Parts: sequence; structure tokens; C-alpha cells
Amino acid sequence: MDSKVNRIITQLNKDSLDGLILSSPANISYLTELRSRDAYLVISQKENVYITDSRYIEEARKRLKGFTIEQTNSAVFKKIADICHGLRLKCVGFEERQLPFAAYKEIRKELNNNVGLVATSGLVEELRQLKTPQELEKIRKAIQISIKAFRFIKDFIVIGKKELEIAAELERFIRYNGATASSFDIIVAAGENSSFPHHLTSERKIKKDEVVLLDLGVDYLGYKSDLTRVFFSGKINPLVKKIYRIVLRAQELAMLKIKPGVVINKIDGFARGYIEKKGYASFFSHGLGHGVGLEVHEEPYINKKENKRLKNNMVFTVEPAIYLPDNFGIRIEDMVLVTKERMEVLSGALDK
Amino acid sequence: MDSKVNRIITQLNKDSLDGLILSSPANISYLTELRSRDAYLVISQKENVYITDSRYIEEARKRLKGFTIEQTNSAVFKKIADICHGLRLKCVGFEERQLPFAAYKEIRKELNNNVGLVATSGLVEELRQLKTPQELEKIRKAIQISIKAFRFIKDFIVIGKKELEIAAELERFIRYNGATASSFDIIVAAGENSSFPHHLTSERKIKKDEVVLLDLGVDYLGYKSDLTRVFFSGKINPLVKKIYRIVLRAQELAMLKIKPGVVINKIDGFARGYIEKKGYASFFSHGLGHGVGLEVHEEPYINKKENKRLKNNMVFTVEPAIYLPDNFGIRIEDMVLVTKERMEVLSGALDK
Repeated sequence: MDSKVNRIITQLNKDSLDGLILSSPANISYLTELRSRDAYLVISQKENVYITDSRYIEEARKRLKGFTIEQTNSAVFKKIADICHGLRLKCVGFEERQLPFAAYKEIRKELNNNVGLVATSGLVEELRQLKTPQELEKIRKAIQISIKAFRFIKDFIVIGKKELEIAAELERFIRYNGATASSFDIIVAAGENSSFPHHLTSERKIKKDEVVLLDLGVDYLGYKSDLTRVFFSGKINPLVKKIYRIVLRAQELAMLKIKPGVVINKIDGFARGYIEKKGYASFFSHGLGHGVGLEVHEEPYINKKENKRLKNNMVFTVEPAIYLPDNFGIRIEDMVLVTKERMEVLSGALDK
Repeated sequence: MDSKVNRIITQLNKDSLDGLILSSPANISYLTELRSRDAYLVISQKENVYITDSRYIEEARKRLKGFTIEQTNSAVFKKIADICHGLRLKCVGFEERQLPFAAYKEIRKELNNNVGLVATSGLVEELRQLKTPQELEKIRKAIQISIKAFRFIKDFIVIGKKELEIAAELERFIRYNGATASSFDIIVAAGENSSFPHHLTSERKIKKDEVVLLDLGVDYLGYKSDLTRVFFSGKINPLVKKIYRIVLRAQELAMLKIKPGVVINKIDGFARGYIEKKGYASFFSHGLGHGVGLEVHEEPYINKKENKRLKNNMVFTVEPAIYLPDNFGIRIEDMVLVTKERMEVLSGALDK
């Protein structure tokens, strides 16, 4: 805990800030190692203060070490300002991407005019990109549970079964196998529904010889997994087979190039270039992947614009796809870990 | 759809605004009747524009009627500004509680200096408090599924069963019975865990003669339910029995007073006053209830500060509680609808 907070404080000093107000639940969880909700955190060289309301205060008192704990009622922004005053902070940062305008306005109003309030962006997210061994252990566990779930669910991909019934079986299975929760509403997309990248799982029944796309995320003690596989309820028609092979090959090509130092947009480019060559560029409508950790979508984002470089201990998805409107979609999503030399497919044990 | 948008536009005119940028998913869903994510909406007298990215665009094109649909890439704030310019808006509002500071900054930057950008708060939420017959139908369905689930789960409240296994059975059951999803991570809190108002369901096993608190929310096509019941794994000790009766009586007293025109804090006061009289005021650490609809927590908030009055067609929870630290907690949560004359307990069919 301490070293993470200290690294943020070192960064704050460089930016001439003597404190930071955190409002992002994931960032707060990262620094406190508490699965917190409805909380704020003020960190500074002098003291680190965790602020929450009566619903969560007992849990915080019991489980949170190394932070001062303050209870608040509805006047949380006054409380935050009071804490900044009490610590005699002169210039504090806030998380501009995770603080609503109204909250900013309130904090600004409650702070004295001689306290600076400065927008910051991605300070904690930057650290979160590089997973610690403890974090990796939880991510691996989330992936393990997902893989078991994909194997279990095969028998349910049958004609007449509803999308939501398949989601039901998965929701049950993952919790009996150690999951804390699903990390998003499980996507079960049968037939033409698979052509929507983020289909809302519905009452639709599986028909004969269809594509059934499953996108499953598991939460294990706050850490997520995110994997997609495509199943078939019978025969696979030649177009589906062709598209499947293109997507799979695109994924392989991208994965071959993953290692520390590579510019991120190149990884996207290897998959996208292949799909383009095959004539389906306009049907691959999203980025190649995204980081996964305390959030199911987090940095690094693997897309054609990102010009940062891959680093050791990054974890992200590789999920090329082709969506043919009113017909079907194929997406294959795995999770990889960038290692010192190259990379490891964390979900490599799961059949494709 | 139209009448809802028109009512907002009438309100905007009163506030001297000729457009509104919406960023709240629930508010956008309310106006579009689309279960949208990662979308923005610009409404104005001239045109109403729905903005989303490639992942959701096909779904929007297929299902959204009466709105112009615009696809965006990552430069969504520029797109929003362009739309405002195109419609020649002179002064637009934004939702200050649901727009991050960074997004506000971007939109402000992209708008010409001669376009005003004004913070608004609760414009759509105000409308959403009063449920339409179509909305009530969905809420009733969500409650129906929950009630079935509470009846089903009784047999699983046995010694040795894990909290997460009970959640697993509920997650499965509700989807087989028509639910779209659970509306929050189901709370199963055994023994001393029930003394945390928002316990995180865990691997803890149920022991003999314990309190097991279940807080279950169901999502039916975007509309939520939220109900809590307490079960027992054996004998009920006299203190539990005493506390249970106090909480139940507090709920009855509050419910008796619910009707249009009553000041909201009085409703909270009827329950809280009784709990206070019995000597447990400091163990009832949250408000009496909250509105439920497209969000599981929404206006009206039923607490000791709210001085607005109840209106016909409001839907909210009534959930008095007593939490005895390191011992147990009792919360009884039902959902009520304010009617023309008085009120209806929507979850009245569920045993207490």
C-alpha cells in the first residue's frame, strides 16, 4: 500500500501539488486494497484520509490499515475541503475524468480561495497498468474460473435454449467456482445478435446451425477477466468457417508481435492489416483490445491511435472481430501478459 | 417519447436554454427508450440527436425512432460541439452531476465562444420520479420475479451453504424467470456480516441459528426492483426477535403515512422516531428509502432532510433497519407506489 501511495505523492511533488483528491472507485481500491464504493480519498505527504458514509464506515474501520478514516454525511465535499484545510494543503489535484462537474464546483466553493485545485488525469491509472504479482494472482484466478465456465457451458449451447438461460447457468457456475461476481452482464448472442459487438442478452432462443457468441467476465476479489469464445449449435456454414479463420489468424499475428517496447498501435495494425487484406476491414469496428485489472476496461487501450509502448507486466485483451450486419459476428478474445522477453497468453488453456 | 422530450424542452425554454447535452445513461434511456450505454444525446427544439460509437451504432439504427443518429469515434466531444453548432444553438445546458469535469472542459473548448454552456441539474430526474403506466408495468414485473426468487431461495438457507452460493442460485433463478439481469451484486449477509448495511457477499458459510439477510434487485428490460428480507438458519434468539419486531413496526408506521402531499422527511421521521423511542436510533444509519426505476437508487430520496412532498406515481423503497455491530443487522425493504388517494405496497405479496 504505502509504496503505491508514495509513488503517487512523488509524482504530485513533481507537478507542484501537495495533495490529491481521489474519486475513482478503482483508483481508491488500488491504493487502499479495499473494495470500496461511495468513498473519497485525500492523499498527501502528511496524512492519507479515507472518507465514506455510515453504510460503509464499519467495514472500513475493520479492514483498512494505514489510512485515517473519516465518516461523512451528505456534505461530503465540505468534509473533503475541511480535510484539505486541516492538512494545510496549498495546491491539491483532483481526478478530472472521475469527478463530475457538480462535485468539482462544490469542492471549489468549499476550499478557501488561497487553496489551488488542479485537474489531473491518469496519475493512478499509469501505475495500475503494470500489474504486481499479487494482482496477477487474482487476475489468473479470475481467468481460471472463466475457462472452467466456458468448458461447462458447452452442453447448454443447444437448440431452444434462451440466451438469458445460458447467462443464468454461467452466473451460477462461476460463483460456485469461487468468483465474487460477473464483471459485466454476460453477453450471449445467438445468430444475427452476434453481429452487435455489445449485444444485450435476451429471451431469444438458439436455433439450428447458429453462431453463439459468449463474452464472459469474472470478478475475483475485485480483479476482472474478459474472454470471448464462439460456439455453434450444429453445422458451421462455409462463410462462418472462413470468417472464423480470418479472425483467428489476425489474433495470432498480433500476438506474435507482443513484447515490451513495441508501439501499441502496431499491435492493432498487425491484426487489422490482415483483416483488411482479406477484405473485411470495415467490419472490424472497434479497437483490438484493452487493459484489464480492477476495471474490465482500463489502460492500456490497444487501438490504431495509441502510440505509447508496451511494457513488462501489462495485461490486456486481444480481441479481433468481424461483424457482418444482419448475419453473424465472430470475435475471439484472449488475455495476455507482457513479460520481460515477450508475452504469455493468460487464457491459453482455453480451446479455440 | 416525444412528449417526454417536449416537456424537457419546455423547461429548457423557461431557463433560457435552447438545447441540452445529456450524458446520464439512465436519462438517455428514459428519453430514447433504448437501453443505451456509451451514448450522448443533444435535444433541442430543432432536432434531437443520439450520438454513439461503432459498437452500438447498428443497434441504435435498428431500434431508435424519432432521433437523428450520429456515429462518433474517440472525438465525441468535438462531435457534440459540431452538432450544437450545426443546430445554431446559442445557449446549451449540460448535466452537471453526470458529466465529468474533463468532458465539460473538452466540450467548452470545442464550442465557439459565443455559445453558452450552462450547468443544469435534475431536469430529467424530476420527470422520472413520476412513473408512467408503461414504466410501472416493468417495475411490477421486476418485483414479481424477485418475490418468486425469495420464495425459491428459502430451501437454500441452510447450515454450511456459502453466501456466494446463495447468490449463485438467485442469479440463475431470476434469469430463468424472465429477468434481464440482477440490478446490483446480490447481498447475502450471514451472521455478523448482516450488520454491514452493504456487505460484499463472500465465501462465508452459514452457521447454526443465524440471521441471513438477502437484498435482491432484479432488472427487467431496464427497470429495477430492490427488496430485502431476513431469513434464519434455525432458532431465532430473543434479541433478534425483538429487533425484528421493532424494524417491522417502524416500517408499518411509515407506510401508514404515505400519501400524496406529505413532506418526505416526515415519512422518514415516523420510522426513525419509533426506532429512537425503542433506544436504537444510532443503529439506523441510513435514510428510510430511495426511488427505484431506471436506476436502483434515484429520486426521491426518503431521508430526514428531504422537504419536498410526495406525489402520485412516485415509486420508492421503505427500508428501516437496525445494525448491531459485530452481532447482526435487520433490514426489511419493500417497494411502494404513491397513488392518488394513498399508496400501494408493490411487494405486498412477499411474506415478512
